[in-house]
Amino acid sequence: MSKVRVGIVGYRGYSGAEAVRILSKHGHIEPVLMEHRADAEHRAEPIPAAMPVKIGCSAEAAVEHDLVAVLLATPADVSMSLTRDFLAFGIKVVDLSGAFRLKTAETFTHWYKEEHLAPELIAEAVYGLPEFYRKDIAGKRLVANPGCYPTAANLAIRPLVAAGIVETSNWIICDAKSGVSGAGRKPTLKTSFCEVSENFSAYSLLGHRHVPEIFMNSGLEEGQISFTAHLIPIDRGILETIYLKTAGIDSAEDILGIYQQAYLSEPFVRLYAPGKVPDIRSVVRTNFCDIGFHFEPKTQRLVVVATIDNLVKGAAGQAIQNLNLMLGYPETEALL
Amino acid sequence: MSKVRVGIVGYRGYSGAEAVRILSKHGHIEPVLMEHRADAEHRAEPIPAAMPVKIGCSAEAAVEHDLVAVLLATPADVSMSLTRDFLAFGIKVVDLSGAFRLKTAETFTHWYKEEHLAPELIAEAVYGLPEFYRKDIAGKRLVANPGCYPTAANLAIRPLVAAGIVETSNWIICDAKSGVSGAGRKPTLKTSFCEVSENFSAYSLLGHRHVPEIFMNSGLEEGQISFTAHLIPIDRGILETIYLKTAGIDSAEDILGIYQQAYLSEPFVRLYAPGKVPDIRSVVRTNFCDIGFHFEPKTQRLVVVATIDNLVKGAAGQAIQNLNLMLGYPETEALL
Amino acid sequence: MSKVRVGIVGYRGYSGAEAVRILSKHGHIEPVLMEHRADAEHRAEPIPAAMPVKIGCSAEAAVEHDLVAVLLATPADVSMSLTRDFLAFGIKVVDLSGAFRLKTAETFTHWYKEEHLAPELIAEAVYGLPEFYRKDIAGKRLVANPGCYPTAANLAIRPLVAAGIVETSNWIICDAKSGVSGAGRKPTLKTSFCEVSENFSAYSLLGHRHVPEIFMNSGLEEGQISFTAHLIPIDRGILETIYLKTAGIDSAEDILGIYQQAYLSEPFVRLYAPGKVPDIRSVVRTNFCDIGFHFEPKTQRLVVVATIDNLVKGAAGQAIQNLNLMLGYPETEALL
Amino acid sequence: MSKVRVGIVGYRGYSGAEAVRILSKHGHIEPVLMEHRADAEHRAEPIPAAMPVKIGCSAEAAVEHDLVAVLLATPADVSMSLTRDFLAFGIKVVDLSGAFRLKTAETFTHWYKEEHLAPELIAEAVYGLPEFYRKDIAGKRLVANPGCYPTAANLAIRPLVAAGIVETSNWIICDAKSGVSGAGRKPTLKTSFCEVSENFSAYSLLGHRHVPEIFMNSGLEEGQISFTAHLIPIDRGILETIYLKTAGIDSAEDILGIYQQAYLSEPFVRLYAPGKVPDIRSVVRTNFCDIGFHFEPKTQRLVVVATIDNLVKGAAGQAIQNLNLMLGYPETEALL
Repeated sequence: MSKVRVGIVGYRGYSGAEAVRILSKHGHIEPVLMEHRADAEHRAEPIPAAMPVKIGCSAEAAVEHDLVAVLLATPADVSMSLTRDFLAFGIKVVDLSGAFRLKTAETFTHWYKEEHLAPELIAEAVYGLPEFYRKDIAGKRLVANPGCYPTAANLAIRPLVAAGIVETSNWIICDAKSGVSGAGRKPTLKTSFCEVSENFSAYSLLGHRHVPEIFMNSGLEEGQISFTAHLIPIDRGILETIYLKTAGIDSAEDILGIYQQAYLSEPFVRLYAPGKVPDIRSVVRTNFCDIGFHFEPKTQRLVVVATIDNLVKGAAGQAIQNLNLMLGYPETEALL
Repeated sequence: MSKVRVGIVGYRGYSGAEAVRILSKHGHIEPVLMEHRADAEHRAEPIPAAMPVKIGCSAEAAVEHDLVAVLLATPADVSMSLTRDFLAFGIKVVDLSGAFRLKTAETFTHWYKEEHLAPELIAEAVYGLPEFYRKDIAGKRLVANPGCYPTAANLAIRPLVAAGIVETSNWIICDAKSGVSGAGRKPTLKTSFCEVSENFSAYSLLGHRHVPEIFMNSGLEEGQISFTAHLIPIDRGILETIYLKTAGIDSAEDILGIYQQAYLSEPFVRLYAPGKVPDIRSVVRTNFCDIGFHFEPKTQRLVVVATIDNLVKGAAGQAIQNLNLMLGYPETEALL
Repeated sequence: MSKVRVGIVGYRGYSGAEAVRILSKHGHIEPVLMEHRADAEHRAEPIPAAMPVKIGCSAEAAVEHDLVAVLLATPADVSMSLTRDFLAFGIKVVDLSGAFRLKTAETFTHWYKEEHLAPELIAEAVYGLPEFYRKDIAGKRLVANPGCYPTAANLAIRPLVAAGIVETSNWIICDAKSGVSGAGRKPTLKTSFCEVSENFSAYSLLGHRHVPEIFMNSGLEEGQISFTAHLIPIDRGILETIYLKTAGIDSAEDILGIYQQAYLSEPFVRLYAPGKVPDIRSVVRTNFCDIGFHFEPKTQRLVVVATIDNLVKGAAGQAIQNLNLMLGYPETEALL
Repeated sequence: MSKVRVGIVGYRGYSGAEAVRILSKHGHIEPVLMEHRADAEHRAEPIPAAMPVKIGCSAEAAVEHDLVAVLLATPADVSMSLTRDFLAFGIKVVDLSGAFRLKTAETFTHWYKEEHLAPELIAEAVYGLPEFYRKDIAGKRLVANPGCYPTAANLAIRPLVAAGIVETSNWIICDAKSGVSGAGRKPTLKTSFCEVSENFSAYSLLGHRHVPEIFMNSGLEEGQISFTAHLIPIDRGILETIYLKTAGIDSAEDILGIYQQAYLSEPFVRLYAPGKVPDIRSVVRTNFCDIGFHFEPKTQRLVVVATIDNLVKGAAGQAIQNLNLMLGYPETEALL
């Protein structure tokens, strides 16, 4: 059976490389590398290098090589400058940057501190969290793949908010921790081995640009959540510890019931028995989001732990989940 | 100048070994190893092994070898069974376990799930956090060295509570992260390299036994704090992210002023300019507790980050700080 | 299509768990867990735990549940005590221990310091390195899966020895480095996080029990190789640096030619251009053995670097490669 | 007592920062930071930052601030361009680069692939390995601090060669492994956390530029040693495994005797009993070089393991050991 072709822009970065790796096992899609910036690779490769096809990065090249879609594993400015052209030539786009995740150009500029270069496309972009927006994604030509932190936070928080059990008079605290690959592959002092190893640090204490994605998709309002990010000395993986106060809950089983109802038939959300929580090894190199919690009925104190692999469910895996939906393939293909 | 001798019980454990290392540079104290359990050492040593004097673990041996004090780097049950005898023979005790930190035998049993073996000593034990109880420590013969998590939490929280600026109607959240040495040296699956590396996990989500030390010394009441611990894949170091709501604060400088007033002349507490926070490398292998914060006046949201080395300010270093006070030496000796 | 069933003994260990993971993607084999020792698991699992079928560990249970083969991911003494029974009931065995790798009971006792419990089976066991013994493996009912260190060493050395270009008047040096999972899952001080992290150490400096597997399968004789093992602070992966003197070689291309002739059609051996060498990330979580080298014609100095994942090509992956051969499935199934 | 002042050029690098840290505990020397390149620092610092005096980087500034010596923790080209001036103004120089380690400008250019900028100074520079050249160092104004790899290799090899027990008809193999800080602080892809972690790699397989330092100081001749370097995923520390063939040695005790005679009164070389070897944790954050070995009399096979901290005995610590000798202070001051 012949496969359709999907281009990967930014295939040397960690998310892009992960997308190539996942698609190399896909039964219906052949990945094609699109050369946007010719950075030197430093890793030695076996001979003959079994690399996918490599083409230039343009809509014309995409058409010429019969691409049906592209994954943009690129910074927001690059994504904004490339997307219009691909769409004009009938190429579908899954964008892994923050370019099309927020609802207005103004909000984008507020959080990303840069002009939006393709504001006319914002309205048609769908936020690619299939567990919430599966039906919208299927028919769209432009999907904004969610940020890594919001993916875990939204999946953990939204069912609780939707069930009306969260006290929002004080902040919901989301204390998030991520491995280093979340910072990208460009060498910086902050991601140098000797600075990160044997260390642990907090950053974006009062406002990470991923925060508006949480407001907009979890059912919370701006100002109801306090989010702080931390850097773990590991390659990949995110763990978020979320502190909430509930109202009117009798037992942990009720909380579990809310989650089970929300995610009963979801292939990529896994739940834990009350009192059990996932760790990063539970999900690394998978497309799962794992959710567990502890609950104290007397005080209504609820602590939820959610984990994902930032490069899979937090980036390339979810992008391919979206791509499967957009192209009509089984949603889980190449992901289980 | 001849030195006085101090015994170390549990010198093969991480805290005990750290105490020996620190005391080997002390101008007035000579460490003496007390052999409580003869576990095999697995590390090769150079010849001749430049080891301190090694004696048996008993009050009689302590007297015979002219010890003036002992550091108990032992589990609570061992500490409870040894302390009475040492005191009876006039040997001062700094205990690094939780045996004498709480105010009643009942509280101890509630949190440690074991009987107290020396309840008559609880009342005279002083909680060895010199920044708060310096004067009490100087005259005492029994000091309960604080837990690692509470040391950082109490130093970060108490000045704020004392200043009356903390809204306690909702929980103060203390999201704590520790390196693996906090779990001790006994091999377990949970502290095996292949389980910890490339991982990050949460534990004690609703109630760590260190929590009552925070109630009792921070000015907060039970139920006002929500504490969760996490395991970082590093050897040593603690970082705590503390989320509070303040009332009536105009600017970050006001917060800094409160901390500066509290710690102006403290040799082991270091403060950061508003918007700057310490990381674990800031303090590792030192006796410092570093405190930084971000503050948002509009919402009165305050996020404090405190870091210590769990084996130094969180254990052996603070024990020697206490020992210096008890024996009349400069408080910072061997610690700066 | 219905699958055949293969039992995994020792499925809680690192190699056994890896075998279960690989077989869960196999098109023709269904893994069945065999409960040999009921050690507690400490990891939380999602609900419902999607675990394979679990049965007792006996030949009778194997027959009752229609197993066609078992993988023994067990210590040599357990393997020796289990194998006879399985074979007697017609169940094929791939043994991952050292029990059946050496050619006589005396050699086994010499290197493993224990009695052989099933000496009558040694003669029929085949050494399961498919690149050398593929034809023998296909027809056998008992395969001794190679040790991790010898797999890389033999694949790197044998083509050179077979080509007659190695000067054996002095030692071939094999300086081997392994991740911690090679030491198994049982908690020990030597594999505790705080002892391994930020460390690197040498062990078995003059004689590792894997050494006879190298003599016997590389074409070298005892005494021609000097092997030393080291522990890397990583979870998995082996890198071996092998120092040889050649005779009569004009250029690096000649060395490459020898390797290419040996491994031209091998699916799991990958070669690098002269002057390029693989690292551990080149092979981790794959069944590949990667081989690269540097060569200095003037001095005939040849330094070869070979890398494998100790849990895959060095254990579970190679076991399944052998199983595929024994059961008549494509050799690469579930492994590419 | 007033201290003399020593300037540190390159104090933001790992070696320079280590020198500042060590000198901050020195009883006779006050470190002064010399600002050569104003790279941004990214780490937050407590207030007030307890930083040493900071001045410009020139001979004039050095004179004006009464410096008696400078440590150049800089690349070779910077060291070559700065040294002449400092010496001309009477400022002694300890250079941590390779600029003055080799005996001729030609040799330098051959190994470092750059022109020598101060060839007239080469002859008067002394190679700063105090265990071999202590007397020369004391009187000199220019000391070339040894490379990290050669420090361990020379200390391990030279006593054996001097004793005439090493068979040099085949290569002495030095398989060297180093932590990442050896590569410096400048961010590169090769030293990025996500590339180094969970990895291990070989480099400079046939010729590291440190190799001539080994020829020239170990008693071996060029071509008698084969050296390969490897990168360990740790911050700091070097372990070298050295394979030699001896002649006429009856027992391991004889080997130990040779080492003991060479290093009997050396404060920074520690020996291990035969069959015991040091690891990296044995020496990290110390100025020790630890040496252990295994020996097989029947085959005369000798495997030596030597470890140092690359930033201490391999760089800043040894530089201060040299400085102590040059300035007439106790050699071990600030280093034990």
